[in-house]
Amino acid sequence: MKKIALIGSTGSIGVNTLKVIESHPDKFRVVSLAAGKNADLLLEQARKFKPALICIRDREQAALLKSKLARTGIRVVWGEEGLIEASSCANADTAVFSVVGAQGLRPLIAAIKSGKNICFANKEPFVIAGELINRLAAKHGVKILPIDSEHSAVFQCLEGKKKDEIRRIILTSSGGPFRAVTSRELRKVTVRDALNHPRWKMGKKITIDSATLMNKGLEVIEAANLFNMPVDKIEVLIHPEAIIHSLVEFIDGSHMAQLAIPDMRIPIQYAIGYPERLDSNGLPRLDLTHVRRFHFEKPDMEKFPCLGLGYEAKRTGGTMPAVLNAANEMAVGSFLEGKISFVDIPLRIERVMKKHRVVRKPGLEDILESDRWAREVFNAGRSVGCR
Amino acid sequence: MKKIALIGSTGSIGVNTLKVIESHPDKFRVVSLAAGKNADLLLEQARKFKPALICIRDREQAALLKSKLARTGIRVVWGEEGLIEASSCANADTAVFSVVGAQGLRPLIAAIKSGKNICFANKEPFVIAGELINRLAAKHGVKILPIDSEHSAVFQCLEGKKKDEIRRIILTSSGGPFRAVTSRELRKVTVRDALNHPRWKMGKKITIDSATLMNKGLEVIEAANLFNMPVDKIEVLIHPEAIIHSLVEFIDGSHMAQLAIPDMRIPIQYAIGYPERLDSNGLPRLDLTHVRRFHFEKPDMEKFPCLGLGYEAKRTGGTMPAVLNAANEMAVGSFLEGKISFVDIPLRIERVMKKHRVVRKPGLEDILESDRWAREVFNAGRSVGCR
Repeated sequence: MKKIALIGSTGSIGVNTLKVIESHPDKFRVVSLAAGKNADLLLEQARKFKPALICIRDREQAALLKSKLARTGIRVVWGEEGLIEASSCANADTAVFSVVGAQGLRPLIAAIKSGKNICFANKEPFVIAGELINRLAAKHGVKILPIDSEHSAVFQCLEGKKKDEIRRIILTSSGGPFRAVTSRELRKVTVRDALNHPRWKMGKKITIDSATLMNKGLEVIEAANLFNMPVDKIEVLIHPEAIIHSLVEFIDGSHMAQLAIPDMRIPIQYAIGYPERLDSNGLPRLDLTHVRRFHFEKPDMEKFPCLGLGYEAKRTGGTMPAVLNAANEMAVGSFLEGKISFVDIPLRIERVMKKHRVVRKPGLEDILESDRWAREVFNAGRSVGCR
Repeated sequence: MKKIALIGSTGSIGVNTLKVIESHPDKFRVVSLAAGKNADLLLEQARKFKPALICIRDREQAALLKSKLARTGIRVVWGEEGLIEASSCANADTAVFSVVGAQGLRPLIAAIKSGKNICFANKEPFVIAGELINRLAAKHGVKILPIDSEHSAVFQCLEGKKKDEIRRIILTSSGGPFRAVTSRELRKVTVRDALNHPRWKMGKKITIDSATLMNKGLEVIEAANLFNMPVDKIEVLIHPEAIIHSLVEFIDGSHMAQLAIPDMRIPIQYAIGYPERLDSNGLPRLDLTHVRRFHFEKPDMEKFPCLGLGYEAKRTGGTMPAVLNAANEMAVGSFLEGKISFVDIPLRIERVMKKHRVVRKPGLEDILESDRWAREVFNAGRSVGCR
């Protein structure tokens, strides 16, 4: 029986993690739940899964939850301190993280230090602080298991294989909604166009990242950190059907690939169940004779400069990935607010990156400081109207 | 340094095995070579690789080779006894088998009993005597490594995975030259049509087996025996591009697949180098953006009854796979001689299978006897003109 701390329980990863847990009641028990704003859903989850502890961001919401859960014995905590408590709570042996942005980093580090295995869905911590997390995980002897379907695929392809026999990692990408759009058309893309992803309904930030291919740029950095590989051994392959979730080429020319229907419960279940594979319990099964065709093409690096910025940030290293990540969050926010155009996103990120003085081998504070710096510089750039 | 006994050195697998050995001179040394009829090529190979021992089928050819190799110190042996000596020769630690038909079985067993790891390319031994080989391999602590690209793929997909987590094995098939042909057109297929395989140049027997899909029927049996799986957990998927060499589905819905360019040196090198993967040393690399498309479809079991006969023979078990194999060899021979039509092949095999009284848990003699019996019954059927 695994005891799970679920950090980010009301987002789509959180909700699906609870579905997986529910479908294997003999395998998992929830010991803590943490959410941002959705108190109603958190309350419902708390009543259903009866954790020892729940956390919500806001103090007043916490007070309300406390009164509603008064007779249940469930403790209610709040804020960053509460989040750290939920992440490192003593009863859990596995912490699942799905927290948007850099805010998940401190709780994640707390969970590692408390000796929990980490299943993580949000890529930011590994993008901005991958080397730091690796060092800490090694020190505390904890396993790091990716939930992201691409990284889960790579992890599965590498299981039982030797690291020095890897030639390259090939991350697949659906290509996003603008794969077949011309560069000229891309200039006219509206927020509405960009939010209309052909395949998945996701949060707004990640939907825009999928459209710019920054999502894949961040995943390249994440893979380099997670699998400890030079970034130039990581390639991106456009595969619109999104059935092959990624591949690994070995030195003998063999490729291993992981395939599944695009349903996040599969990588979630793999991560939280690891090293055991559990039955998919009625999830739809992949039938390649129904899919019938796979397509592959090269990503267009000129049309989607965000992908190249991902490579560049990782090649530069140090605090640059944190700057890339923060500048991208700001640029996407500006785009969603209608303040900059779609094709401005990479230009604005690049401008911030060019101004950054990299800190080599950064600690947590350097990383968080670079994150803050990038946001400020982005805003300064905007305020002086340098569109 | 692995010391290799290469049984069947002048066929395409043998020639390619020597290419792999040549490209890794620090990894492999040839200690024995055995061939059927091609004395010229065997002589050339002996001069180049300087084994301790060579074997040829015919006594007179052996005498001629002996005189030509007089001053080299290379021993020359002949016949089945010679073949057994070449297979079990004391200096070798690995024996590579690529011998057509049931004749490879005794030498293979001799190699296992002498404690060599076995790399095998010809499927007959595992089709007709899979359980027997498994028992012997376990008893003598030797590894069995498939060279066939489909089985090598499955082996690689299973490496590092747990057997009780397998849901099914999916063997891919190019579909053969008549995939898109109607049942009516299939009746008019000539020997020439059937030998004109769209993708590979192979021996005549295996080219016809690819056209009837008996090749896949035999592979289903081979996979069931090799991976110790119920035959109904083994499926066949048509994939004309022949880049995915096979897949394994696990109970969580994840599929692992092995992909590579269709070049037999890749699975040969994997098998003889195992557990080490060696560099592909200049072999062309797979680029999915060049392949661009994969197609998948279900095999047409009505148009290609040989595939169903494979399943049926394995479900029946005992000596039935040996009967299927022998009857198929005879039927293909008859077709190549112009004596029966293409669509008669499965009908004639089925007729022999229906007459067979199965021996359960057969020993080697039962298997060889069933092989003889099936050939006789096939001929008897032919001689009384029951086309």
